[in-house]
Amino acid sequence: MQTSYIKQKDIHFLDLRENLKNKEYRNLKNNLEKYNPIDIKDFIEELEPLDRVLVFRLLSKDDAIEVFSSLENEEQIRLIQAFTDTELDRILNELNIDDMVDMIEEMPASIVKKIIRHTDSSKRKLINEFLQYPESSAGSLMTIEYVELKKYMTVEQALTRIKTTGINKVTVYTCYVTDESKKLIGFVSLRDIVISEKDVLIGDLLHEKVIFVHTHDDQEQVAEVFKKYGFVALPVVDNENRMTGIITVDDILDVMEQEATEDFQKMAAMSPDDESYIESSVWYLAKRRINWLLILMISSAFTSAIIGHYNYLLIAYTSLYNFSPMIMGAGGNSGNQSSTTIIRGLATGDIKIGDWLKVMLKELRIAILVGAILGGVNFIKNLIYDKLSIAYALIISISLIFTVCFAKFVGGLLPILAKKLKIDPAIMAGPVISTLVDSVSLLIYFNVIKIILPI
Amino acid sequence: MQTSYIKQKDIHFLDLRENLKNKEYRNLKNNLEKYNPIDIKDFIEELEPLDRVLVFRLLSKDDAIEVFSSLENEEQIRLIQAFTDTELDRILNELNIDDMVDMIEEMPASIVKKIIRHTDSSKRKLINEFLQYPESSAGSLMTIEYVELKKYMTVEQALTRIKTTGINKVTVYTCYVTDESKKLIGFVSLRDIVISEKDVLIGDLLHEKVIFVHTHDDQEQVAEVFKKYGFVALPVVDNENRMTGIITVDDILDVMEQEATEDFQKMAAMSPDDESYIESSVWYLAKRRINWLLILMISSAFTSAIIGHYNYLLIAYTSLYNFSPMIMGAGGNSGNQSSTTIIRGLATGDIKIGDWLKVMLKELRIAILVGAILGGVNFIKNLIYDKLSIAYALIISISLIFTVCFAKFVGGLLPILAKKLKIDPAIMAGPVISTLVDSVSLLIYFNVIKIILPI
Repeated sequence: MQTSYIKQKDIHFLDLRENLKNKEYRNLKNNLEKYNPIDIKDFIEELEPLDRVLVFRLLSKDDAIEVFSSLENEEQIRLIQAFTDTELDRILNELNIDDMVDMIEEMPASIVKKIIRHTDSSKRKLINEFLQYPESSAGSLMTIEYVELKKYMTVEQALTRIKTTGINKVTVYTCYVTDESKKLIGFVSLRDIVISEKDVLIGDLLHEKVIFVHTHDDQEQVAEVFKKYGFVALPVVDNENRMTGIITVDDILDVMEQEATEDFQKMAAMSPDDESYIESSVWYLAKRRINWLLILMISSAFTSAIIGHYNYLLIAYTSLYNFSPMIMGAGGNSGNQSSTTIIRGLATGDIKIGDWLKVMLKELRIAILVGAILGGVNFIKNLIYDKLSIAYALIISISLIFTVCFAKFVGGLLPILAKKLKIDPAIMAGPVISTLVDSVSLLIYFNVIKIILPI
Repeated sequence: MQTSYIKQKDIHFLDLRENLKNKEYRNLKNNLEKYNPIDIKDFIEELEPLDRVLVFRLLSKDDAIEVFSSLENEEQIRLIQAFTDTELDRILNELNIDDMVDMIEEMPASIVKKIIRHTDSSKRKLINEFLQYPESSAGSLMTIEYVELKKYMTVEQALTRIKTTGINKVTVYTCYVTDESKKLIGFVSLRDIVISEKDVLIGDLLHEKVIFVHTHDDQEQVAEVFKKYGFVALPVVDNENRMTGIITVDDILDVMEQEATEDFQKMAAMSPDDESYIESSVWYLAKRRINWLLILMISSAFTSAIIGHYNYLLIAYTSLYNFSPMIMGAGGNSGNQSSTTIIRGLATGDIKIGDWLKVMLKELRIAILVGAILGGVNFIKNLIYDKLSIAYALIISISLIFTVCFAKFVGGLLPILAKKLKIDPAIMAGPVISTLVDSVSLLIYFNVIKIILPI
C-alpha cells in the first residue's frame, strides 16, 4: 500500500497469479484477503473458467458474497451451475434482495428455478414484490438493508437493534423512524445516537425534516435529489407513505453515468440503451442506429429538391458551387454547438424553459459575433487563396453569416421548444439540426447569389 | 410531508412567502426550521436583495452555515458586504476549509481581504495550503473534516474522540487510522466501533485493505475509484503518504456531472468549461466556440478543392449533383453514431484501447448492414420518387454504402487512436468526423460516377 490507487492499477495481482501458477492455494487464500472484493472480481474475470471456480471457493464468506454480486450475469450463471447445493445456499441466503432481483431479471428460466428452489419463502415473496417495480423506478433501485427505529425506543435499545440487524454497509448510518403503521416520520443519524446518553429517547433525536421519494418515481429525478442535497441515502415510501426501502448513493453514481450515456446516444441519433457495446451483437447495434439514419436520409430529400430547383444557378456559376459544403458544414457545426449547450444546460438545470428569450437573444448575439469572424476570415481566404472576385467572396461570406445566425437560432430554440412540448430535448441535437441547416443554408446561398449576381 | 419530494417541488415556500409578506418574522423563523437548508437557499435566491439578508439573519446557526456555503458566489459577496463583524466571525469560523477555499478562489481581492481578516491564523495557513492544489485535483476536492484514530486507542477513547471533534457529517462514518508520523495505515468503520465492547483496541478493528488517492491525482480518476468501489468517502494522502484529507461522494456527483458536461462540449467542438451558460457573457461563449469553427471551416477547403477538381462531372451530370448533400449528411450521421459510441465507451471503461480490432470489425459489419439498408431504401426512392435512371440510382446508392462504411470505420478508429496517442478521444466526435467524411464522400461519389458513366 505504498502508492495511490490511481498509480497502482498496473501492478495488480502479480502475487495472486504467481500463487495460482504454482498451485500454492494456501498462500493464494491469504493473499486474496489483501484485496478489495471488487479487485478480486477483476482478477477472477481474467482467469480460465476452471480457475474461476477454484479462486471463488478460496474466498472468505463476506468477500465471496461481494464478489458474486459484482460479477457479470454470464459469470454468475457459470458459477451457479458449478456450485454444490450447500454453496448455493450459502451465497443465496446472504445476497441482498436487490442484488438477487437484478440477477434474476437477467437470467434464463432454468437458472431462476434453481435459485428460487434455494431461497426461503419470505425472501421469495420480497423478490416477487421487487420484480414488479417498473424499470428505472426508485423501487427497482432500492435496497431493504436499512435500520428502522421507533420514537419510543431509547438510545440503548436503538444500538441493540443496530447491532442485531447485522447490516454491514453505509446504509446503517441513517436510521429511519416509523410510526405504528410503518409510515415514515423522520430519521436519526447514527452519529447522534452514538454521542447521546443511553436513556435518551429516539423521539428526542428525531429529525422530522425528512426528504423521501416514492417507489414509482423515476431514477433520473431521484438522482437530481441526491445531487441537490448531497445525501448518502434516501428513504423510499409506497402509496400509503409506508417505509419500503432506501436508495444509496453508490447506485446513483451508476444511474448518473447511465443517464449521461443515454443522452450521448440520443444526441448522436441512436436509440438509447445501457447494454455494453462490446457484449452487444452487430444486429442489435445496427437496429438501434438505422431508424434515425433513415429518417434523416429521407428528410434530406428537401436539400436535393432545393438544389434541383436552383440547378440553373449552378450551371451559370459553377465555381461558386464548390463552397456550398463549407457553408453547410459551418452551419451544422455552429448549430450543433448551440443545441448541445442548451440540451446539456436543460439536463443539469442551469437553463430552464422560462429562459427561452434570454437564450435566443444570447445565441443570436453569439451568432453575429462568430458569423462575422468566420465570414471575415473566409472573405480574405476567398480573395487571396481561392482568387475569387470580390462579388463572389462577398456572396459566400454573407451566406455564411446568415447561415450561422439561423443555425444558432434553431440550435438554441428547438431543444427548449421540445422540452416545453414534453419531448426529450436531446433529440434536437447535431444530426437533426444539421439536416435542417443543410436545406436552409442552401436556400440562403442560392438567394444571396440571385440577389447579387445577374441571371 | 405527505408526498414524495419529486412531486412536491411546485408547492414549496408558500408559507414562507406569506410570512414575509405579512412581516410575521417570528412565524417565518419557525417555518424556516421545517425546510432543508438547500431548499432555504432556493427560497432566498428568489427574494429581493434586502429580504435576503433579513431571511438569512432569521436562520439557526447550523442552517445559516449550510445555506451560506451553498449560495452562488455573487450572493455570498453581497451577504459578506451586508454582514456586521460579529456575523462575519460567526459564519467564517464555522465554515469548512474546503468551502472557504472554493469561495476565496472566486472572489475579488477586496472581499478576500475582509474574509482573511476574520479568520484565525491556523485556518489561514490551511487555506493557503489548499489554494496550492491544482484545479481538478484530489487535493482541491478534499475536506479535512474526518476523524483520525490511532491503533492503540480503545473503542471508548475512539468514541470520545468522535464526540469531541463535533463533526456533523457523513464523514464521521469511516475513521482513518494513522501511525506516529501521520501515515495512513487503515480504517475503522463507525459501525464496528459502535458494536464493539468498550475496551477493544482500534488496532483489532483495523481494516488494512485501504484504498486511497493522492492529493495530485486527477478528479476524473478519483470519480472512477468511487464508481468502481461504491465508496462514500476516500482518504487522500500527500507525497509522504501522510493522511491529509478525505473526499466525500457528494462532491463526486458534481465531478461526474461536470466531466460529462465537458465531454458534451468537446464533442460539439467547443472549449470545455463548467461556467454557467446563463451567467456567461456573449464574448466569453463566442470565444469558446470560434476556434473550432475556424479550424473546421479552413479544413473544409478540401471539399471545395475536390468539387472544383471534378467540376467537369458536375456540368455533365448536373442532376446527380442534387444528391451530394444527402450522401455527405448520411455519412456524417453514421460516423457521428460510431464515434459517439466509442468515445462514451472509452469514457465509461466499457471499451479499452486493446479492443480496437474488435471495434473496427464490429463497426465495419454494422456499416455494411446499415449501408445496405440505406442504399436499398434510397435506390427505391430514386427510381420511384425522383424518377432517376437505374444507372443514376445505382451510382447514388453505391456511393452511399461506401460512404457509410468509411464514416463508421473512421468514427470507430479515430477515438481509439486518439486515446492511444494520449489525445482526448472526445475531440474525434461528430464535427471532426463530418468534416473528414464530407471530403471523402465527395471523392467516393465522383469516382463512382466516373467509373459507371461515360465522360
